Amino acid sequence: MSKIAPISGFPELLPAEQVAFNHALNIISSTYQSFGFIPLDTPAVERVDTLLAKGAEEKEIYGLRRIQAEDEGAKELALRFDLTVPLARYVAQHYGQLNFPFRRYHIGPVWRGERPQKGRYRQFYQADIDVIGDGTLDLYHDAELPAIIYQIFTKLELGKFTIRLNNRKVLQGFMAQQGVEGTENIAAAMRVIDDLEKMPREKVLAQLSTLMSADNADHTLNFFAQSHDNQAWLTELEKIAENDVFKQGVAELQAVVGALYTLGVPDDAFKVDPAIARGLGYYTGTIYETVLHDYPELGSVCSGGRYDNLAEKFTNKPLPGVGISIGISRLLLPLLEADKVPLHGATMAKVLVTVQEREALPAYFELATILREAGIATEMFLEPKKLPKQLKYADKKGFQYIIFANADELAAGNVQLKNLHTGEQQEIAKADLVESLK
Amino acid sequence: MSKIAPISGFPELLPAEQVAFNHALNIISSTYQSFGFIPLDTPAVERVDTLLAKGAEEKEIYGLRRIQAEDEGAKELALRFDLTVPLARYVAQHYGQLNFPFRRYHIGPVWRGERPQKGRYRQFYQADIDVIGDGTLDLYHDAELPAIIYQIFTKLELGKFTIRLNNRKVLQGFMAQQGVEGTENIAAAMRVIDDLEKMPREKVLAQLSTLMSADNADHTLNFFAQSHDNQAWLTELEKIAENDVFKQGVAELQAVVGALYTLGVPDDAFKVDPAIARGLGYYTGTIYETVLHDYPELGSVCSGGRYDNLAEKFTNKPLPGVGISIGISRLLLPLLEADKVPLHGATMAKVLVTVQEREALPAYFELATILREAGIATEMFLEPKKLPKQLKYADKKGFQYIIFANADELAAGNVQLKNLHTGEQQEIAKADLVESLK
Repeated sequence: MSKIAPISGFPELLPAEQVAFNHALNIISSTYQSFGFIPLDTPAVERVDTLLAKGAEEKEIYGLRRIQAEDEGAKELALRFDLTVPLARYVAQHYGQLNFPFRRYHIGPVWRGERPQKGRYRQFYQADIDVIGDGTLDLYHDAELPAIIYQIFTKLELGKFTIRLNNRKVLQGFMAQQGVEGTENIAAAMRVIDDLEKMPREKVLAQLSTLMSADNADHTLNFFAQSHDNQAWLTELEKIAENDVFKQGVAELQAVVGALYTLGVPDDAFKVDPAIARGLGYYTGTIYETVLHDYPELGSVCSGGRYDNLAEKFTNKPLPGVGISIGISRLLLPLLEADKVPLHGATMAKVLVTVQEREALPAYFELATILREAGIATEMFLEPKKLPKQLKYADKKGFQYIIFANADELAAGNVQLKNLHTGEQQEIAKADLVESLK
Repeated sequence: MSKIAPISGFPELLPAEQVAFNHALNIISSTYQSFGFIPLDTPAVERVDTLLAKGAEEKEIYGLRRIQAEDEGAKELALRFDLTVPLARYVAQHYGQLNFPFRRYHIGPVWRGERPQKGRYRQFYQADIDVIGDGTLDLYHDAELPAIIYQIFTKLELGKFTIRLNNRKVLQGFMAQQGVEGTENIAAAMRVIDDLEKMPREKVLAQLSTLMSADNADHTLNFFAQSHDNQAWLTELEKIAENDVFKQGVAELQAVVGALYTLGVPDDAFKVDPAIARGLGYYTGTIYETVLHDYPELGSVCSGGRYDNLAEKFTNKPLPGVGISIGISRLLLPLLEADKVPLHGATMAKVLVTVQEREALPAYFELATILREAGIATEMFLEPKKLPKQLKYADKKGFQYIIFANADELAAGNVQLKNLHTGEQQEIAKADLVESLK
C-alpha cells in the first residue's frame, strides 16, 4: 500500500502530538495578539519572480504545474519558502490601505524543495512577527519583540532559554576600527566571529588575518572571547567605540537593553553577545537569536532583527522594520519525537460524558449541553458500548474528567464525577457540576 | 510593478477583513473543540496517486516541480484539493494508533488548478469536521454534527439559515418504488430531483420519464414539490415507504430529527427536505446542506453527510463516517466584498496606550503590562508622534479604548480612559483600570 506511505520531509503528527503542537501555536498567537498584532494570511502561492526577487537563488522551490492540462506557457507559480517575502510583497502592494506602524504575525507552513534529511523538512511551520514603519520606525520596537518572545518561551515550558542580543553596527564599527575596509570584508569578518564557538582558535586567527593585521586579529579574537554580564558588556563596548557606526550601535544596544528591563524582561533571560551576526545580509541594526539551554543542538530556534528596507524589490518607499521568526516545526518536532514536550492528551475536551442507559440519552445530552454552555469543552460517548469500554476510551484519549450515572442517579438529579488524573470520584448534584468543574 | 500584482484566484485580505475572517475561524474551531474534536493538520502535499485514488479525475491539480533541479523523474507531488482524501489516507495509515470513534476537525486551505472566475478560487479554506467509526458508527453522530453547525452559524451572525436534512436511502427507496432499476438509474433520478428548484416542470418531467413511466414521473414530481413542516414530512414519508431501503431511510431520518431536538436545535433551524441529494456519490445515508436566507446565491455553504466507507482505496478496514464541511472562503469572501460581514477593526487588541511624555515611557509600559497580565490585549504606540496623530491611528485601526495621560496625571496615578465607540471619557486611577476595562 505504498500510496499511503509518508512522503519524506512532510512531517505529520498523531493526535496527542498535534494537540501539544497546537497548544504551543495558541500560546504564540494569543501572546502576539495581546500585544496588538493582527493575524494575517497570504496565499501559499506566489509568482516565481516575486519569490526570486529577494535573493532566493540558493533555495529549491516547489514549482506548480497543472496536471491534465496542456502546457500553455502560463506564468510560473510556486509555493512560498518563507513568510518574509510574502510580507514584503503584501506591504508594497497594499501600502495605501495599511496603518503604520504595521504590526502583523503570520503562523503558517512554508515549503522548500530540498532533499529531506534529519531535522530538515520540505514543509515546516514558522511563526513570524514583524513591525513595519513608514519611513521611520522607533527603536523601542526592537525591545518590544524580545519582550514578546520572552513571554512565549516562558509559557512554552521548554526549560531555560536565552535571547542573545546584538547590533550589527557594533560589529561593523569594531571591524572598521581593526582596519577592515569595505562592506564585503566587514561582512566576511563578521561571519568569522559568528562562527567563533565552532572553530579552533588557530583557524579563526588565520581567517581574521586575511582581513586585518595579525595584531588586530589577535586583539579581535580576545575581545570577542570575553565573558561579561550585560551591563559590563555595554560598558566595555562604550569604552572602546571610536567611530560613529560603532558609537551608534552601542547607543542602540543600550537603549534596547534599557527598554527590555522596563518591559519586565529579567536580566538572566537575555544576553548581550557582540559575537552574534546572523547569516542573512539584510539585517542592519539589532539582531536576535534564541537558544534553549537543554537543547543546544537545535541551534537558534527564534531569530530575527532590524532591517532598513523590507520591500526594496517591490517599492521605492523606505519601509524599515524589525521582526522575529520562531521556527516552530524545527523547534517542536524534534522535541516531540524525543518526548520532551508536555502532552495534554489526544483531546481538546476536558470532560467525557459516558452513556450507561441508552434510553436516557436525552438526560446525558442535557448534561453535555449544560457544560458546553458554561464554556467547558465536553465530548459525549455516542456508541452503544459497555461502560468499561467507554472508560478505556476516556483513559486512552486522556480526558481529565468523566461523568457517569445510572437511571437511579439520573432520576435523583445526581451524577458521578471522576477525575481521571487523581482517581478521585464523587457523587454530585447536576446543579453543582459546572461550578465543580470550573 | 507587475510582480506584485495579485495572482488571480489566490484571494488575500486587508487587515480588517482578515480579523473578521479569523474571528469566524475562531468561532468554528472553538465550537468544534467544545464538542471534543481535536485539531489535525496534514501536509499540504500528497502523492498524486493518493489524490487520484478517490476519483478526482475531473479536478485540476497543481503539480509540484522543483525549480533549479534537473528532472529526475521523481514521484509526482501535488497540493491537496480537499481535506477528505488526506483524512482517509491519514486514518488508514495511522489506524492502529487512533482511538475510535475518531473525531477531528481540519481548517485549512486547499488548492485547485482551475481557471479562476468570479466566486471560484484556486486556493480556498475549508473547515471540515468528521467522525470516523471502526466498523460501525452510531446514528447519533449524524445528529451531533448539524447541532454543532447550528451553534456555529448562530454565532457567525450572518442572518437566518436553514440546515437541510435528508437521507439518501429515502430517495433511493422512493425511486425503486417508482420502478427505477439499477444504481446508475437511481442516481440519475436523484440528480434530477436535486435540480428540481432550478428546472422548469416540463424539463423535469421529460428527464424523469426516461427513467420511469409517465404516471410515476408525474407522481414523483408532485411528491417532491410538496411543502410540509418537518413532522408532516416524516409522517408522509413513513406512510408511503414500502421497501426496506426506504423504510430504513425514514427510520434513520426520524432518529436524527429526534436527536436534533434533544440536542437543542430548534425546529425552524432545520428542514427535512427529501429532494436534496448532494452531488457526490459516496454519501450513503444522512445528507446535509446549509443555506443562508439572505444570500441564496451562495448556494449551500456547508454540506456533508454519512458515508459507509471512508478509506476503501487505502485500507480493507470498513471505516464508516459522517462529516460536514464549511466552505469558509466561498462563504465569507463574497460577503466581505459586499460589506455584509461585521468587522471588528484592524486590530486584535482592545486598548491602545498612547504616549504623551516620551521621557515617561516606563510609566506607559507599566500600564500596558498591567493590562496584558489581566488578559486584556493592549498595544502601545511607540513612535515619537504628537497625540492627535496617535488618536488618528487608534481611530483608523478601530481600537475600542485608548489610554492617555500627561506627566501630572501620571504622577497622581491617574490616566484618561476614552471609549472610542461611545466617545465617553473618564479620569481613572491606575489601580481601577483593569476592573473598568473588564
